[in-house]
Amino acid sequence: MSDALQKGRDLLADMNPGLEQLLADRYDALVPGMAETLVEYGYGRHYARAGVDLKTRQLCTIAALTALGGHTAPQLKVNIKNSLAAGASQTEIIEVIWQMALYGGMPAAINGLNAAKEVFEPGDGP
Amino acid sequence: MSDALQKGRDLLADMNPGLEQLLADRYDALVPGMAETLVEYGYGRHYARAGVDLKTRQLCTIAALTALGGHTAPQLKVNIKNSLAAGASQTEIIEVIWQMALYGGMPAAINGLNAAKEVFEPGDGP
Amino acid sequence: MSDALQKGRDLLADMNPGLEQLLADRYDALVPGMAETLVEYGYGRHYARAGVDLKTRQLCTIAALTALGGHTAPQLKVNIKNSLAAGASQTEIIEVIWQMALYGGMPAAINGLNAAKEVFEPGDGP
Amino acid sequence: MSDALQKGRDLLADMNPGLEQLLADRYDALVPGMAETLVEYGYGRHYARAGVDLKTRQLCTIAALTALGGHTAPQLKVNIKNSLAAGASQTEIIEVIWQMALYGGMPAAINGLNAAKEVFEPGDGP
Amino acid sequence: MSDALQKGRDLLADMNPGLEQLLADRYDALVPGMAETLVEYGYGRHYARAGVDLKTRQLCTIAALTALGGHTAPQLKVNIKNSLAAGASQTEIIEVIWQMALYGGMPAAINGLNAAKEVFEPGDGP
Amino acid sequence: MSDALQKGRDLLADMNPGLEQLLADRYDALVPGMAETLVEYGYGRHYARAGVDLKTRQLCTIAALTALGGHTAPQLKVNIKNSLAAGASQTEIIEVIWQMALYGGMPAAINGLNAAKEVFEPGDGP
Repeated sequence: MSDALQKGRDLLADMNPGLEQLLADRYDALVPGMAETLVEYGYGRHYARAGVDLKTRQLCTIAALTALGGHTAPQLKVNIKNSLAAGASQTEIIEVIWQMALYGGMPAAINGLNAAKEVFEPGDGP
Repeated sequence: MSDALQKGRDLLADMNPGLEQLLADRYDALVPGMAETLVEYGYGRHYARAGVDLKTRQLCTIAALTALGGHTAPQLKVNIKNSLAAGASQTEIIEVIWQMALYGGMPAAINGLNAAKEVFEPGDGP
Repeated sequence: MSDALQKGRDLLADMNPGLEQLLADRYDALVPGMAETLVEYGYGRHYARAGVDLKTRQLCTIAALTALGGHTAPQLKVNIKNSLAAGASQTEIIEVIWQMALYGGMPAAINGLNAAKEVFEPGDGP
Repeated sequence: MSDALQKGRDLLADMNPGLEQLLADRYDALVPGMAETLVEYGYGRHYARAGVDLKTRQLCTIAALTALGGHTAPQLKVNIKNSLAAGASQTEIIEVIWQMALYGGMPAAINGLNAAKEVFEPGDGP
Repeated sequence: MSDALQKGRDLLADMNPGLEQLLADRYDALVPGMAETLVEYGYGRHYARAGVDLKTRQLCTIAALTALGGHTAPQLKVNIKNSLAAGASQTEIIEVIWQMALYGGMPAAINGLNAAKEVFEPGDGP
Repeated sequence: MSDALQKGRDLLADMNPGLEQLLADRYDALVPGMAETLVEYGYGRHYARAGVDLKTRQLCTIAALTALGGHTAPQLKVNIKNSLAAGASQTEIIEVIWQMALYGGMPAAINGLNAAKEVFEPGDGP
């Protein structure tokens, strides 16, 4: 196992322990090695890097996914959960999403708020 | 003066004191009220909000502008300077930019690194 | 109340009188002041400006939301209704959406047409 | 009939014979001439050009729609079917989608894989 | 010559008479037929359609290109000139660009204003 | 060294032998490990995969970068060179770029053609 894969798995053990298996079940038959690649690269080579704490990394991901637009809503929801697991509060997450009205436009921010509502208040969507 | 405009000006007094005048000189003849609107809305209604500290807000902006792509390089540079003024280190800024390879793709991350290099090492561009 | 907020409310009184309350009900618990900010900034600071008539502003919004892609469909539908309220015909709205095939690509234009169909012919979606 | 329209129809006769009629039924009442324009321009002026074989053109379309993001999923599904009709294998389609993680980011690639799963394994969505 | 090509040429005769030749000189050796295709499709099949006047179509294009971001600046400048030729005032153009802060974000609007300044005040760029 | 890194280096030895060193010189002081990560992930984990030949992968990258817009021009130029090295002809590259008018819009396609011209005809830019 590469060092980066190990680091990615160590990180996910705390933050989202079922993610690699879920990805493997869903995608590895189609894309052999997809789950391992995502864990190694995304978590081992990015989130596990030093220099910025995990909570800030997660909030930056929230910001980027919101600014990129509503079609990233599924990934935004996963990362909202990961942000909570990394110690971010609901308020911090919401504030970062709303700030994105400045950079991704109002529709992007509103779609981001809707994604957050679906995570925070399941069954009470817009 | 609206409350939000006052809050925006108070915030910029520390972070980027010349910004409103620079915007007014450049744009207000074309777009009457542009500088005031940007300070009121952007800084008074967003950056001055409670709930997330200013440094984290700035790093989230860095993330979003990087993910949106290289055509936002001028605004990314302004916000890299604002992030330094808000207490972020060069390392934190660079780490957030590089992480965006995951969400905006490699070209977006590389264009973001190039913008940061131009701020950190003027005259030593790619 | 700021001048811009008053102007935004005056404009919405004709065009979409329930919008501020709807936004407040949906978002203000999560993002205090969201509805007021959107009315003040979006309608008071942008749509209420002189220089371009409201119908043209609305058609330009239709164009932009279509070009930005299908993930802005919810906001596109709101703005199609606002465009009708501002005096635009169904034909004008459709023509502007279709023209966006040139700038946002065919998929963006087709997704825009689908959003318009859902507004004009509810219950008869694609 | 223009030459380009004829070429477009000839191409679709093999690849997707019902497409022009489906577009006409769905859109021509709203946008007179839409179906003809799309066939003439899209298929006659682009896909029917010499210089690159049709299968490669289709895989390039898969790549672009994936990179542009999840809001083009309906068009991605149509083009996945067209790619199969042009001789591409499921593996080729999946590989091209996954490669887009590099250029459009992980969320775009994952949304593309989900669209492909819905085409390849109908009723077994994510 | 197809009807659409004739319509496109008639329209450009007033608005931008040198465009087809300029495109042919620049691109036709690389992409045979590019200039004719762009005139036929863009101007004959879109701008020459009935239902919306040309000035409004041009302002909608300004809106879309601004919202899509600063990398469309070359095309935005061409369309700002076309908009003036179609009877739009500098004020109308500027107002539409600035409104896009709402939909494409502040950086997109500011990059659009910069493109307009370069058209209106050549030699006096930002 | 991980398997993926080895595979990436093997691939680049043919296609673009100086790339890892160029990236290391330019970025590794800022982002420790950047060059290795890009080679391992981009080339080892994506381009070196089986299932699609390298030339087709490169043409798909050309398509995606064109559709994403003119701000990816630097990366588009690198990949145009890589595509030539992988056996693609100038015609194939140009055809794929022009086809993107359908999906990324005319401005994106034209910006892509300009990038290709700068590679094919250096010193003879638009």
